[in-house]
Amino acid sequence: MGAEVRIYGIVGIPEACSGDNVADLIAAGLEHSGLAIEPGDVLVVTHKLVSKAEGRVIALDSVDPSPFAERIAQRYDKDPRHVEVVLRESARIVRMDRGILIAETRHGFVCANAGVDASNVPPGYVSLLPVDPDASAARIRSELISRFGAEHAVIITDSFGRPWRNGIVNIAIGAAGLQPLLDYRGQADTFGNELRVTVMAVADELAAAAELVMGKVERCPAAIVRGYPYQPGAGGASDLVMPAERDLFR
Amino acid sequence: MGAEVRIYGIVGIPEACSGDNVADLIAAGLEHSGLAIEPGDVLVVTHKLVSKAEGRVIALDSVDPSPFAERIAQRYDKDPRHVEVVLRESARIVRMDRGILIAETRHGFVCANAGVDASNVPPGYVSLLPVDPDASAARIRSELISRFGAEHAVIITDSFGRPWRNGIVNIAIGAAGLQPLLDYRGQADTFGNELRVTVMAVADELAAAAELVMGKVERCPAAIVRGYPYQPGAGGASDLVMPAERDLFR
Repeated sequence: MGAEVRIYGIVGIPEACSGDNVADLIAAGLEHSGLAIEPGDVLVVTHKLVSKAEGRVIALDSVDPSPFAERIAQRYDKDPRHVEVVLRESARIVRMDRGILIAETRHGFVCANAGVDASNVPPGYVSLLPVDPDASAARIRSELISRFGAEHAVIITDSFGRPWRNGIVNIAIGAAGLQPLLDYRGQADTFGNELRVTVMAVADELAAAAELVMGKVERCPAAIVRGYPYQPGAGGASDLVMPAERDLFR
Repeated sequence: MGAEVRIYGIVGIPEACSGDNVADLIAAGLEHSGLAIEPGDVLVVTHKLVSKAEGRVIALDSVDPSPFAERIAQRYDKDPRHVEVVLRESARIVRMDRGILIAETRHGFVCANAGVDASNVPPGYVSLLPVDPDASAARIRSELISRFGAEHAVIITDSFGRPWRNGIVNIAIGAAGLQPLLDYRGQADTFGNELRVTVMAVADELAAAAELVMGKVERCPAAIVRGYPYQPGAGGASDLVMPAERDLFR
């Protein structure tokens, strides 16, 4: 028999409010879903849940747009307060064209609108990425280990677009308890050739896999991936950010 | 209960040779693995298996490098015959720097070495991408439907690097029987906000999910994803190629 991996959507997670404990919310959803965290599981959580619990949601009414934000908003027919929030979350603008704003965040992620998003938050609000998603993942993991007594890994996701390809995919923006990159270099393939450049971004593949049960409009902000033999480790999703000196597309 | 998706690795697939029927090879592996294709399954196959069966493997000894290939090879310490094959498979060079050659293939995919790869083929050989991976997927699907009588989808994968992120991930380069993009535009989120830009590249997420059981060095070139409610359709992975006029990163 070949390997087998199962992915379970966690439902019944209460709507998160600022100050909520994410591990409590997840535990409530697990109970509602008839699930528990088992050793070796990967818990995958959408960042939206984490951002809300961490108070990373902003009322647009509270935002005073700069003249630059006003100009960009006028040119591309956007809400200037939304543009202002995007600029505040940006470390650098990578592309600004045809109404699309691709920014590098302070974490080093390159994505549309610096991760600022108006979906799945109340009208008039926008959500931001967590300040330190790896730290958020480590905190959630540590609290869930206390509750369930099971060594596991945690991944926090967002869905990003990609150059050259249509559609967005779930990727890992935070991780704890696993090596996010699986390094095959030096191992031999079935013909004895040494694999020279194969480093798999397994945390991103786990994030993408979990999206298959999470969807966008059902209320399923978390999932368990069970049966994947991840390599335990102290790495985080920051390991997935390509250093500028290696990057041909900065 | 939330949704549940299972992923099964298919083992015992014979090594593919030029002229082999991919559906026969998959069927042999399914039998060896105690699996059958059920209605609604997504069969995910690495392109390497398909390329070998379609004769898309080249002996480097048969390649006569051009002066340009010789110069590039010398500059970056590569095999000039390998570089020549990459150039022949390229429609356009996107980046050529630090020994890395990122090319656009005739299919419109942007990837390292135009998909030419020396792993999992005999020493002295390189594999190419299938000529028309969507047609390959459609053919495999049609033959497996004849055998198993189960409506299903087929995805052919390769692993690509990404700008800005470390590591490679499995993506769909061929597909048949499903809509590779899931369009949420016009639907409402849990707060009643209309989702405006959310089109998920589900074929890429299915490809990534399957990689979790396929690995790189074990002989597991295919997997079944079961329980994912894909949208049946006539689309192919060519739908995932972003048209030049929408692409900010050509």
